[in-house]
Amino acid sequence: MTGVRVAGVGLTEFGDHPSRTGRDMFAEAAAAALGDAGVDHDAVEQLNYGNFMGALAERQGHQAPLAAEAAGLRCPATRYEEACASAGVAVREAVRAIRSGETDVALAGGMERMNNLSTSRVTESLAIAADELFEVRAGVTFPGAYALMARAYFEQFGGDETDLAHVAVKNHEHALDNEYAQYQRSITVEEALDSPVVASPLNLYDACPITDGASAVVLVSESYARDHDVTAPVAITGTGQGSDRAALQDRAVIPETPAAADAADAAYDDAGVEPDDVDVAEVHDCFTIAEVLALEALDFYETGEAVDAARRGETTSDGDLPVNLSGGLKAKGHPVGATGGSQIAEMTRLLRGDHPNSDAVSDADIGVTHNAGGTVASAVVHVLEVAK
Amino acid sequence: MTGVRVAGVGLTEFGDHPSRTGRDMFAEAAAAALGDAGVDHDAVEQLNYGNFMGALAERQGHQAPLAAEAAGLRCPATRYEEACASAGVAVREAVRAIRSGETDVALAGGMERMNNLSTSRVTESLAIAADELFEVRAGVTFPGAYALMARAYFEQFGGDETDLAHVAVKNHEHALDNEYAQYQRSITVEEALDSPVVASPLNLYDACPITDGASAVVLVSESYARDHDVTAPVAITGTGQGSDRAALQDRAVIPETPAAADAADAAYDDAGVEPDDVDVAEVHDCFTIAEVLALEALDFYETGEAVDAARRGETTSDGDLPVNLSGGLKAKGHPVGATGGSQIAEMTRLLRGDHPNSDAVSDADIGVTHNAGGTVASAVVHVLEVAK
Repeated sequence: MTGVRVAGVGLTEFGDHPSRTGRDMFAEAAAAALGDAGVDHDAVEQLNYGNFMGALAERQGHQAPLAAEAAGLRCPATRYEEACASAGVAVREAVRAIRSGETDVALAGGMERMNNLSTSRVTESLAIAADELFEVRAGVTFPGAYALMARAYFEQFGGDETDLAHVAVKNHEHALDNEYAQYQRSITVEEALDSPVVASPLNLYDACPITDGASAVVLVSESYARDHDVTAPVAITGTGQGSDRAALQDRAVIPETPAAADAADAAYDDAGVEPDDVDVAEVHDCFTIAEVLALEALDFYETGEAVDAARRGETTSDGDLPVNLSGGLKAKGHPVGATGGSQIAEMTRLLRGDHPNSDAVSDADIGVTHNAGGTVASAVVHVLEVAK
Repeated sequence: MTGVRVAGVGLTEFGDHPSRTGRDMFAEAAAAALGDAGVDHDAVEQLNYGNFMGALAERQGHQAPLAAEAAGLRCPATRYEEACASAGVAVREAVRAIRSGETDVALAGGMERMNNLSTSRVTESLAIAADELFEVRAGVTFPGAYALMARAYFEQFGGDETDLAHVAVKNHEHALDNEYAQYQRSITVEEALDSPVVASPLNLYDACPITDGASAVVLVSESYARDHDVTAPVAITGTGQGSDRAALQDRAVIPETPAAADAADAAYDDAGVEPDDVDVAEVHDCFTIAEVLALEALDFYETGEAVDAARRGETTSDGDLPVNLSGGLKAKGHPVGATGGSQIAEMTRLLRGDHPNSDAVSDADIGVTHNAGGTVASAVVHVLEVAK
């Protein structure tokens, strides 16, 4: 089986870009990734593109050929939609295509445009990632659903709002020097706790913002990198995907995410690594409680034991396992269909040493990314390693 | 490289099912496919699911895990969206996953629910497959876009409305005995020509109907079929995909479809067959002119020479190359996100001899399917063969 390397990464600034079109943002990310890789447009054999709510936000479906055209590519182009894990799946399928030997060069990533809608329309649009029949009609939105998960977590395993506030504070701290981050400013635990209630026990600062942005990564086979003198020091060595029942009510346990656990098990097995081997992680913290659930699904912590990891300093930049050094969805931002690609881009920068926070993980060899859809009805996990 | 077999196929009746949910229809198709294959639910390793406009029709995104749950599967589930080629891409990626050796059993297909919207809302919703900025805002809908293609074809290559009417008459004739078809009734050339104008030169009978329905196929590796005594006499030996600029105005030539030609070249090359070897085809006749363009892209005819193929009787059930023996999108129906899977299901039934129209192709060894998105900004072509 051919190994897969990350040859280049590209991102737009994450933030509020209501006057930009989706295709324009994706073109910027793609051009940056190809430039970073030193790979020519003509070499790209397939585009794997993630987008979630384009039908509602831009009234634009069938975005893959448009994205290819905007990026100057002429190759088969496919859109993946897996709610907030759309780009994670797009990357995963590019990895699998390269491994199969059929493809040597793939561009993968995604785009989401959200701020052109009102906040209430965004909330409604995001809700289509939940079960329309059995959740949305009953009034469930994602802040509400994750609030249910947080409440169930506290009841079953303990922990409190202050534990979660530390997750937010940490991720804002990590984003301070990230030029792509939507929020490059610190917050305090007190500010987080005093921020307006969104859905108790979650406050405004427990939630990621509404973000426009795009991500792209150029993935190549090892043999292509070697034969074409492409500098690509980071390899994707493991990939895993999991699915679960969509509606929270249908799950055996509310504050656990077996789809992510399945994805993690598969990715670790694929890479031949153990959770203990991992040096750094980017996880899907759409809400602070989601980071806690991710750390447990990834087996960094036993079930019920990750809630105060940030508070104890274990996942901060000087902790044993820095988590979301990019700032995470919480502070870097969450352009839904782009996030999975952004995680790969950020992890690549961290591992190859050109991320503003690379100093925090200068000895790191192995990183993990965790991208989730809905209330983790879908999840994709990747293992990235500094190539030997 | 492992060969890929079609182990089972399943379809719902295509038609007007406003009281059924999408998940319910997909579950029916999946159960039928698994039953036909004699493959257990637990054996399925991945679900590749196509859907186009669920965000608008059911306000349901993130459909893949819901579809898996409804079908009783517990495995990674991914949604592909490529406008009307969504299920074609879903099948293609399942083929590639099996060939890679990573997957032995995949369920692929799709679902679309359309009749719960009004006709004008369906037309608006379908239009998101065109370029929103440069086509839709200028008033382009798909009947209009294909009318432009038909008009350009007539001007550049000749042909007329009567040629197209023969395509409609042929496909209605083919659907007469197809128990899954939306329309099991004959029409005459005169009726087609006298039907109301939709967008000149296209009349009502040049257009496919609005359809609810689902499709599913079980694909397995050759080794799995052998080791588990799965009867699977039809192989998918070739797959190809192409993309083009989305907006018609950006194309060099209006009445040609290079994305489909690219997909066909790739699929033929992949299978090691020539267009002349093909015995039977299912092509994407969303409008009658689309069948003409498909026959040329697939290299069954030179450019500009397919317009009167049906009129000359070459593509009828007793012609040299029967096309759309299922009834095609025109008479069988076109539940957008299901169509690519339906084509594979129908071709499999034709080649293994249990289709109502199998007698017309009792000596057939090689069939081709052609699935297109938008005005063929995307296309997927597959080659199916009776396994030796």
